[in-house]
Amino acid sequence: MPQEIIINDVGPRDGLQNQSKILSIEQRLQLIRALVEANVDHIEVGSFVSPKAVPAMVGTDAVLQSLVGESENFSVLIPNQRGYELATKVGAKTVAMVLYASDGMAVKNVGMAKLQVEQAAEAILQQAEADRVKVIVTISVAFECPFDGPTDPTIVFETANKFLDLGVENLVIADTIGAANPAQVSELMTRLVSRNGAARLTGHFHDTRALGMANVYAAVEAGIRRFDASISGLGGCPFAPGASGNVATEDIVMLLHSMGFDTGINLHQLMVASDLAESLTGAAPGGRSKAWLKPYLLENSVA
Amino acid sequence: MPQEIIINDVGPRDGLQNQSKILSIEQRLQLIRALVEANVDHIEVGSFVSPKAVPAMVGTDAVLQSLVGESENFSVLIPNQRGYELATKVGAKTVAMVLYASDGMAVKNVGMAKLQVEQAAEAILQQAEADRVKVIVTISVAFECPFDGPTDPTIVFETANKFLDLGVENLVIADTIGAANPAQVSELMTRLVSRNGAARLTGHFHDTRALGMANVYAAVEAGIRRFDASISGLGGCPFAPGASGNVATEDIVMLLHSMGFDTGINLHQLMVASDLAESLTGAAPGGRSKAWLKPYLLENSVA
Repeated sequence: MPQEIIINDVGPRDGLQNQSKILSIEQRLQLIRALVEANVDHIEVGSFVSPKAVPAMVGTDAVLQSLVGESENFSVLIPNQRGYELATKVGAKTVAMVLYASDGMAVKNVGMAKLQVEQAAEAILQQAEADRVKVIVTISVAFECPFDGPTDPTIVFETANKFLDLGVENLVIADTIGAANPAQVSELMTRLVSRNGAARLTGHFHDTRALGMANVYAAVEAGIRRFDASISGLGGCPFAPGASGNVATEDIVMLLHSMGFDTGINLHQLMVASDLAESLTGAAPGGRSKAWLKPYLLENSVA
Repeated sequence: MPQEIIINDVGPRDGLQNQSKILSIEQRLQLIRALVEANVDHIEVGSFVSPKAVPAMVGTDAVLQSLVGESENFSVLIPNQRGYELATKVGAKTVAMVLYASDGMAVKNVGMAKLQVEQAAEAILQQAEADRVKVIVTISVAFECPFDGPTDPTIVFETANKFLDLGVENLVIADTIGAANPAQVSELMTRLVSRNGAARLTGHFHDTRALGMANVYAAVEAGIRRFDASISGLGGCPFAPGASGNVATEDIVMLLHSMGFDTGINLHQLMVASDLAESLTGAAPGGRSKAWLKPYLLENSVA
C-alpha cells in the first residue's frame, strides 16, 4: 500500500492574491471546482483581509457561500477576530491564521510584534474550539525573514510545539520567501516530527531560489506527509518581482507519485486545472513538469 | 573549512547542441571564456561527432586549438576511435565518452548494442592511458530509457565499477531524460560511493520533470561531490520538445552555496555568463534562481 500525502492547494488564495489580474467570483469558483475535479480536496479558497490591501480577495464571502457544505477541508485565511467573524458567519469550517517567526515581518505585515500576533491567535483559537471550527496555523518566515535575516530554528520549534499543544488542526512551517536550504529543512522537520508526529504538520515551500523541490524532498525524508502547493505555481514573491512563487502543485505531485506516494490526485484533471489557472490569470506557467507531463499524459492513458 | 564540490559546465557542448541557433566558433569561445571568468574551470567545450548529425559542434577542433594549454579540465566528447584521433591531434588532454545503460538507447544513438559500445570504449581507454589522456565516461539513461523503460540499477552499478576499476578519470551517472526520482538517486549513489569513494564520481541530472534539484540534493546527501550542469539551463530534451534540459549551473551553485559548500564559482560573473548564454542563443533562461539572484547580487556585494 502506497503511503498517502495530502496536498493543500493554496492557489485560489496565496496564488491569486499575487496576480496583477483580479478574477471575478465566478472565475475563482471555476478554478476551485477544477481543482476539486482533479481530486484536490484540501484547498485554501480565499481570505477575509482588507479589501484595500488585497483587492483580489474581495468577495471571499460569496465564494465561500457557494461552497458551503462541500468540504470541511476548504479553508479561508483570516487576519484577526473580525476576519474570524466574517468567515464563520458564512459557514467557514476551517480557518487559517498566520504567525511570524520574526518581529520584522510581523510589524511590516500587521503592525504588531510577533508575540502580540500569537496572543491574538490564541484568543481566536479558544473561540474556534468552542465553535467547533478547525484552525490551521502557519508560521511564516520560518527559515529567513527579508527584514530580520536568518530565523532561529528553536523559536520556530517552540512556537510550533506550543500551538500544536493548544490543539490546532494543522501547523504549517512556511519558507515564505523561498530562502531555506534542504539541510535546514531536514533538521527542523526532523525535530518537529520527532516531538509531535507528522499527522498535523505541513510544509510550505517557495521556489524563489530554485530550492523548492529539493526542500520538499528533504521534508518528505524527514517524515512530512502534507504540503501546501499552488496550481501552475501561481504566486510570486513581493520581495523579488519576477521570481518564482509557491512550489507548483503539478511539480510536487510529479515528485511524490514518482517516489510511489499516493496523493489521490488525478494528473489529467490537474493539467486541466493548470491550463485554466494560466488562461484565467494570464500568468506564465510556474510549474516545470507540465511541458513534459501534458504531452506524456495525452499519449499515455496513465492517471 | 567548507567542503568543495566541482561543477563541470556542459553548456558549451550538451547545451549548445540542443539549440536551434548555431553559434560561430568565436561565440562558442566567448561563452567558454565567460565561464572561465566565473571560475568554472571544468568545462565540456565541444564534441567531435558527425557534422551532419550535430551541425552545432562543427569546428570543435578550432575551439580546442584556441584553448590548448589553458586547462587540463576542458573536455571534449568523442563518439569513437576516429573522434579520439581528431581530438588528440589538436591537443585534447581530457576526452569524454558515452556508454548506454540500455540497448534501446545504444542502438538508437550509435547503432550498436551497449556491450559493443563498452568494448569500443575499453579499447580507446587503453590507448588514452598510453597517451596520458584523461578519460571521462558517462553512463547515460542510468535510471530510465525512453525506449526500454526503467533501468536495472545493478547494471549501472556494475558497469560503473568496471570502468572505475579500469582507471577512468571520472565516471558520470547520467539521468539523460530527467526521469529519476530522488529515492532512486540516493540508493544508487550510496552504493557507488560506498564501493568506490566519491572522488571519481559525477552526477548529471536533467529537470525535465521538475525533479532535477531534488535529485542533486539526494546525490549530495549520498556523498557525490562533482556535478555536471549547464549555464542558464541551456539544453533541452529531444524526447520532450519544450521541456527543461540540464540542471542550470546557477541553480545548482545556489543550492550548494546555500548549504555551505564551496564551488569556487563567482556568482556575479556567473550571471554575466548566463546573460551571455541567453543573448547568444536566444533561448529563454532555463534556470530558476536567476530572477531572484541577479537583482540580489546587484544590491549586495556578495560573491
